[in-house]
Amino acid sequence: MAPNTSFFSDLLASIAERGHALLDPKRSRPAGGEDIVNLCEALISERGEASGVALAQEILRSYAELDDDGRTIFFDALTNRFGPDLDRIDAAIARFTDARGNVSAAAINEASEARRQELIRRLNLAPEGTACLVRMRSDLLTRMGEVQGLELVDRDFEHLFASWFNRGFLVLKRIDWSSPAVILERIIRYEAVHAIRDWDDLRRRIDPPDRRCFAFFHPSLVDDPLIFVEVALTDAMPDAIAPILADSRTAISPGRATTAVFYSISNCQDGLRGITFGNFLIKQVVEDLTREFAGIKTFVTLSPIPGLRRWLDDARADAADELNLTVDQRKALAILDHDQWARKGDVARRLKALVLPIAAHYLMRAKSMRGAPLDPVARFHLGNGARLERINWLADPSPKGLADSAGIMVNYSYVLKDIERNHEAFAHKGAIAASSAVRGLLRSDNQPLENAVAR
Amino acid sequence: MAPNTSFFSDLLASIAERGHALLDPKRSRPAGGEDIVNLCEALISERGEASGVALAQEILRSYAELDDDGRTIFFDALTNRFGPDLDRIDAAIARFTDARGNVSAAAINEASEARRQELIRRLNLAPEGTACLVRMRSDLLTRMGEVQGLELVDRDFEHLFASWFNRGFLVLKRIDWSSPAVILERIIRYEAVHAIRDWDDLRRRIDPPDRRCFAFFHPSLVDDPLIFVEVALTDAMPDAIAPILADSRTAISPGRATTAVFYSISNCQDGLRGITFGNFLIKQVVEDLTREFAGIKTFVTLSPIPGLRRWLDDARADAADELNLTVDQRKALAILDHDQWARKGDVARRLKALVLPIAAHYLMRAKSMRGAPLDPVARFHLGNGARLERINWLADPSPKGLADSAGIMVNYSYVLKDIERNHEAFAHKGAIAASSAVRGLLRSDNQPLENAVAR
Amino acid sequence: MAPNTSFFSDLLASIAERGHALLDPKRSRPAGGEDIVNLCEALISERGEASGVALAQEILRSYAELDDDGRTIFFDALTNRFGPDLDRIDAAIARFTDARGNVSAAAINEASEARRQELIRRLNLAPEGTACLVRMRSDLLTRMGEVQGLELVDRDFEHLFASWFNRGFLVLKRIDWSSPAVILERIIRYEAVHAIRDWDDLRRRIDPPDRRCFAFFHPSLVDDPLIFVEVALTDAMPDAIAPILADSRTAISPGRATTAVFYSISNCQDGLRGITFGNFLIKQVVEDLTREFAGIKTFVTLSPIPGLRRWLDDARADAADELNLTVDQRKALAILDHDQWARKGDVARRLKALVLPIAAHYLMRAKSMRGAPLDPVARFHLGNGARLERINWLADPSPKGLADSAGIMVNYSYVLKDIERNHEAFAHKGAIAASSAVRGLLRSDNQPLENAVAR
Amino acid sequence: MAPNTSFFSDLLASIAERGHALLDPKRSRPAGGEDIVNLCEALISERGEASGVALAQEILRSYAELDDDGRTIFFDALTNRFGPDLDRIDAAIARFTDARGNVSAAAINEASEARRQELIRRLNLAPEGTACLVRMRSDLLTRMGEVQGLELVDRDFEHLFASWFNRGFLVLKRIDWSSPAVILERIIRYEAVHAIRDWDDLRRRIDPPDRRCFAFFHPSLVDDPLIFVEVALTDAMPDAIAPILADSRTAISPGRATTAVFYSISNCQDGLRGITFGNFLIKQVVEDLTREFAGIKTFVTLSPIPGLRRWLDDARADAADELNLTVDQRKALAILDHDQWARKGDVARRLKALVLPIAAHYLMRAKSMRGAPLDPVARFHLGNGARLERINWLADPSPKGLADSAGIMVNYSYVLKDIERNHEAFAHKGAIAASSAVRGLLRSDNQPLENAVAR
Repeated sequence: MAPNTSFFSDLLASIAERGHALLDPKRSRPAGGEDIVNLCEALISERGEASGVALAQEILRSYAELDDDGRTIFFDALTNRFGPDLDRIDAAIARFTDARGNVSAAAINEASEARRQELIRRLNLAPEGTACLVRMRSDLLTRMGEVQGLELVDRDFEHLFASWFNRGFLVLKRIDWSSPAVILERIIRYEAVHAIRDWDDLRRRIDPPDRRCFAFFHPSLVDDPLIFVEVALTDAMPDAIAPILADSRTAISPGRATTAVFYSISNCQDGLRGITFGNFLIKQVVEDLTREFAGIKTFVTLSPIPGLRRWLDDARADAADELNLTVDQRKALAILDHDQWARKGDVARRLKALVLPIAAHYLMRAKSMRGAPLDPVARFHLGNGARLERINWLADPSPKGLADSAGIMVNYSYVLKDIERNHEAFAHKGAIAASSAVRGLLRSDNQPLENAVAR
Repeated sequence: MAPNTSFFSDLLASIAERGHALLDPKRSRPAGGEDIVNLCEALISERGEASGVALAQEILRSYAELDDDGRTIFFDALTNRFGPDLDRIDAAIARFTDARGNVSAAAINEASEARRQELIRRLNLAPEGTACLVRMRSDLLTRMGEVQGLELVDRDFEHLFASWFNRGFLVLKRIDWSSPAVILERIIRYEAVHAIRDWDDLRRRIDPPDRRCFAFFHPSLVDDPLIFVEVALTDAMPDAIAPILADSRTAISPGRATTAVFYSISNCQDGLRGITFGNFLIKQVVEDLTREFAGIKTFVTLSPIPGLRRWLDDARADAADELNLTVDQRKALAILDHDQWARKGDVARRLKALVLPIAAHYLMRAKSMRGAPLDPVARFHLGNGARLERINWLADPSPKGLADSAGIMVNYSYVLKDIERNHEAFAHKGAIAASSAVRGLLRSDNQPLENAVAR
Repeated sequence: MAPNTSFFSDLLASIAERGHALLDPKRSRPAGGEDIVNLCEALISERGEASGVALAQEILRSYAELDDDGRTIFFDALTNRFGPDLDRIDAAIARFTDARGNVSAAAINEASEARRQELIRRLNLAPEGTACLVRMRSDLLTRMGEVQGLELVDRDFEHLFASWFNRGFLVLKRIDWSSPAVILERIIRYEAVHAIRDWDDLRRRIDPPDRRCFAFFHPSLVDDPLIFVEVALTDAMPDAIAPILADSRTAISPGRATTAVFYSISNCQDGLRGITFGNFLIKQVVEDLTREFAGIKTFVTLSPIPGLRRWLDDARADAADELNLTVDQRKALAILDHDQWARKGDVARRLKALVLPIAAHYLMRAKSMRGAPLDPVARFHLGNGARLERINWLADPSPKGLADSAGIMVNYSYVLKDIERNHEAFAHKGAIAASSAVRGLLRSDNQPLENAVAR
Repeated sequence: MAPNTSFFSDLLASIAERGHALLDPKRSRPAGGEDIVNLCEALISERGEASGVALAQEILRSYAELDDDGRTIFFDALTNRFGPDLDRIDAAIARFTDARGNVSAAAINEASEARRQELIRRLNLAPEGTACLVRMRSDLLTRMGEVQGLELVDRDFEHLFASWFNRGFLVLKRIDWSSPAVILERIIRYEAVHAIRDWDDLRRRIDPPDRRCFAFFHPSLVDDPLIFVEVALTDAMPDAIAPILADSRTAISPGRATTAVFYSISNCQDGLRGITFGNFLIKQVVEDLTREFAGIKTFVTLSPIPGLRRWLDDARADAADELNLTVDQRKALAILDHDQWARKGDVARRLKALVLPIAAHYLMRAKSMRGAPLDPVARFHLGNGARLERINWLADPSPKGLADSAGIMVNYSYVLKDIERNHEAFAHKGAIAASSAVRGLLRSDNQPLENAVAR
């Protein structure tokens, strides 16, 4: 470890000697994982108080150039070396046991904080530190499971990011054809629901008068959105995605719109996984559009059911599935395995009566062990207080749409005055708000699914 | 408590019923302290997830209208009701004792967090939440000592603010005559060292080509600076404040300047007490000016010694003072008690030889029990890694200057390459970097002060 | 003239040799009027095509430093040397006489353009050229009459400025407490109707929620407004200025306002005299406020009658005045010459019945030889299509208000749908739109003024 | 014409009645050419003073919807109906003849101004008026020749535009990857020299650290550049375009650049033909880059010779051409007619010795009847004061490059200190500044071209 050590002493010496000369990029040998760990120790020491910005910058710059092995060393140190100080905890516990109360409880809290929390806060001193730390957590998430105990590190990142990316610090901005190309390029890249093919496709989604796109930004990540939503202003609740994405269509005047359709919501930053934005974004956009357009009264999504096919396939493979599928039904459902089924009108028509009730069942009755809906999109919107409004057959016959959602799409509707009631019923009792049409699709518990097929 | 309860249920009902109608300002009866406490409970419950923004806004708006008694109730609840959950801590300690390690340590940390931390984070959801919370802590600080345990609440505020106001989130902006009046007005109000009399006085400090003013801003407090520094670009290290503040003086071309003088640094937000900005501000400004003006090589302050007179007066009143003052010296120093001494040339001249060594002693040898310099300004600059460069006699003969600092001002110099070394020597050994001129003023330990007088 | 010539050749040589070195401010001897004239010749020659920006900058910089004699030389040259080329006109006339038609007419137009028009256009190439040229015309206007023929130069300036400051190029901006101090300072300086005493007074006019201030800006004069209007949002048509300017008053919520009061309009740039902005400004503000506040239906001014006292004094001094004043009336009117008359309730009350009809007469019947109202403020608003709505007694008892307008103020109202009809009736027939209340104040032509007094 | 008339009276009535209701887009029948002409008459009448903005807006909106016949009517009216008033000219001439002098000359100038000048100025009152008028002139230019006398209308447009788009009103902005997409899309569209294939190609030209793009904007055409230049920062004067446009190349650090290469300049607005920007743009960019990068000393273009092939083909077809081409030379030059000649190394090598001197001759000796270089690009740069620095063989072997410029490209160099001398020599004597290398390519006058071939 001699060369590393010497690198490290040289480096610290040079910090002391030359201050910001550190930032000089002409340094001969790149810093390795061990060097960086040593710099991190310096950063949370007293030295870090005087040269924090320079040290933090050096660490983040070196981290970015680390190879895979270097990062393993680095994350290992984060996990083990920069964890909590167990001896301090012992001492604090002793005091707490001695004099149980708020003061000794606060001391326990302080003593048990992992050292990496202060390290991460100090790394944020560097210019563009926040962006680097978000990328660092994104790296960390890909290694989860590889390193023992890394989830504790992740929890500390998440804890700090939840504080830094608090909704109070976010700024809502409209994205349109006047937005900087550097942002638009990222919108193209980050779109996760209905891929944006190219700049012309992008323009069709943000430039026409009846299209909107809004994103949350954080002041420290100026050019990089956190989450964005694409909205179509329409005169009816849509039952298919194709007309919304069509290359050539006639825009309507937004003044005539009655309905705002949230047809795509994409998170942009892997490194912010677990930090909630979507909930706030949708509500803010609902409020803003309500203020701008008196005529818009209906706010709905047009959403996939990404887990439907996989779940249904499992049921079909399971003799004792919860749907009690009959042999005939299983046979009918086998058609879904053919590529082209959605193109054959009569086949599709026949399937509809069988599959829509299954979809309703999946959305409203298929629950995880914690009692939440299995489908992640349903979980998100219902958890936000939305209502399951309509299930649309053959709404997305694209390969992805068929493969994931059996071509079905759902309208979840956001009614401001019901949001909180829905949310609470959902959170406390697992109750799902649904229109009578959707509820009508559900079999009563003792009604066999055949009847549905016969309809 | 019936009416409060009913207000509270009404309010929650109305949230559930009308969503954001809450924000309607026509509510008949103002919320009291108890109501607000109940709303706070709702905010950190599940309800808060659906209506967080509206609830937070309502709480902060109501808090702003609370009278003194209401605030007492509120802060009392923060202290006692929203503290840590001691039973959870007990359980976590039991697990830790059982299986001592990082995982159980993390659980202890989580269990011991005061509930108010999550409360404060959620209050920040409201529009302008951050500004309201900073004001709330400012209120809190004025009550410190009144409420038992309030310092624990304060520590939680400080912990969160340190994270939110991390230097990585701050933006340095130049303040000049093109800045918005709303900001300039605050500069006038916040200036704490050399009061700004009016808008003309302000203009003289920010508009001429050889004057600069820089402030740190936080994105969530757009119009409100956190800290600012006033800088004069000069051609020599200044030995008095009057020429810098003079009403009529001829500006020099900044291209000809050799020296940047930091002659006033003011913190703006009481509610951010304890969060460090000055250190970063000075270093950033040194860097920026270095980049802008190749000719500026010297960066110094012109600072008061605000604790000198009080400390000297204590010494004079103490027969066994650490200066070993003689009867003659005490007599000579009595002149300081006269209003007009600084105007009398020969009196002032005679005092100089006596008082300058005393000032040097005070700055370099008078230490608190923790070993830090007694003088707060010295503590700040020396702690930042600056060097005590020169002590200037009769540099500020204003009433305040005489009353606090005996008319003396100090140049602390910032030399980038020495900052870290100075800081470390100061932090570890209490060593104070000083020029030979200043060190020359100090008596060797066994040298009586008379000799100085005789000089 | 040798030195000048040599200066000139040197200068041109240096332009040729060193290009922009010209801009170097270290030139030893300042350019005189003759030098500048020579540079102007160079600027409109071919040389000017290559070095136009540098030459224009040099001319404008040197002009700014000219003393009075130098400017006399300069304006004399503009008048005589840079006028039209009479020989070219002769030739163009000959061609026109030969072949009368659009082509030869265009040739006449081109031949008869004064050379200074091209000169002024090329001077505008310099950075900040437009601002310099506006100041130059302002200088010119103060010399009008001194130099024979200077009005022709002025006409060329006006012609170009009317084109450059076309309303299509102007930008309306709201002025408020967030505006840059550099602009606010100018608002204080330029206010010409009700002087702004200091920054606190300014703030009272632009910061409260029921106050607005709007200005036109030109992109080339970024920090310098062209014209601005101060607006009070009220719940009734005001009959006095004091409540509007009061130091302490309770602001109303702008949502409750029914009336927008234009209580001060000031032109800012002497050099733009004769270029019309006020008309556009008022209409734009009416439109913008209508869009912002549904409740505001009434748009009125609260205006002085600046020519009333002088005109009335002339009438009083004239035995055969157009009012046919009686001896008693003259005696009664003599009270106006006392300083304090407005403070004496009964005196003022008695005068009211006499003076209000006189004011109505002055506003509606006193005409210039060209048939326009004598009062400039009346001419402006009536010419814009406003209506004379109400004449308010003792509406401005300030010394200036008494001295100019006998303390009276007028509400002119702007009703969008009537503006054009009013404007045309005014322009074609000299008809003045007035409310029946104002018309009722007028004596029928044969009714003696006594009756009015008796009322 | 009854319906038109009635439309017109209705319209004017509605203006009078409803003010801005005009702007309501629900009008049933579109306005025709005649209607618009009538509205134009109204606009320059007194009516226009009261309702100018609304009238101008209505005219421009209706004009935009006119079909071809409607525009014929409109331009015909501009030409004939809104020309000068010949009778007024007669009267002014009479006065001038009577009293020849500056005053009567000014009166002639005023009387001979075409009425459309005032019309165009008033049309500019409309929001976005300037952009509409620029498009209107662009339409006009396509009709030139069709309508008798339209060139007089064009001259008035050009006169006003030269005033409005004076360099003093233009703003230089850098175009980069942070620029709004709406502008970047136009850069792609307007690029006229080396077509930009798509957004990736665009990004390669504006985003890398060694690439720059600058454009002039006018404040009234916010999103629409007037002219732009693409610049490569390099370490040598380039002799071919391909390396500059290459898809994959390694950018150099701009700090290491010695040379700025202007490799593409495009005018954007047809409607501004004849208004000079390029001259100012290049000089401004030279100044700005000089200030930003101390290391950049050389400013050159890499330009096509767009007229070379056509001129050479004419010479080849002419037995008595000015080059005195021999039969062998004609035979050798015939190779240029083959598509693939540039790919055959030895063929190309042999041609070089023959064609480079021809190119030098074309650039330096081929003159128009007015004595200016035939080649438009040469005329532009030499007229700006640039120097013909180097002629590069096979610098652009693209189909367009071969078809226009025989694959040759030229470096014109801009040396600030020589620009004016070059410009004047060029303007007065037709002298062309050229390096000795280029001059060396020219045959002495009596030297036959064969010698060149033999070299």
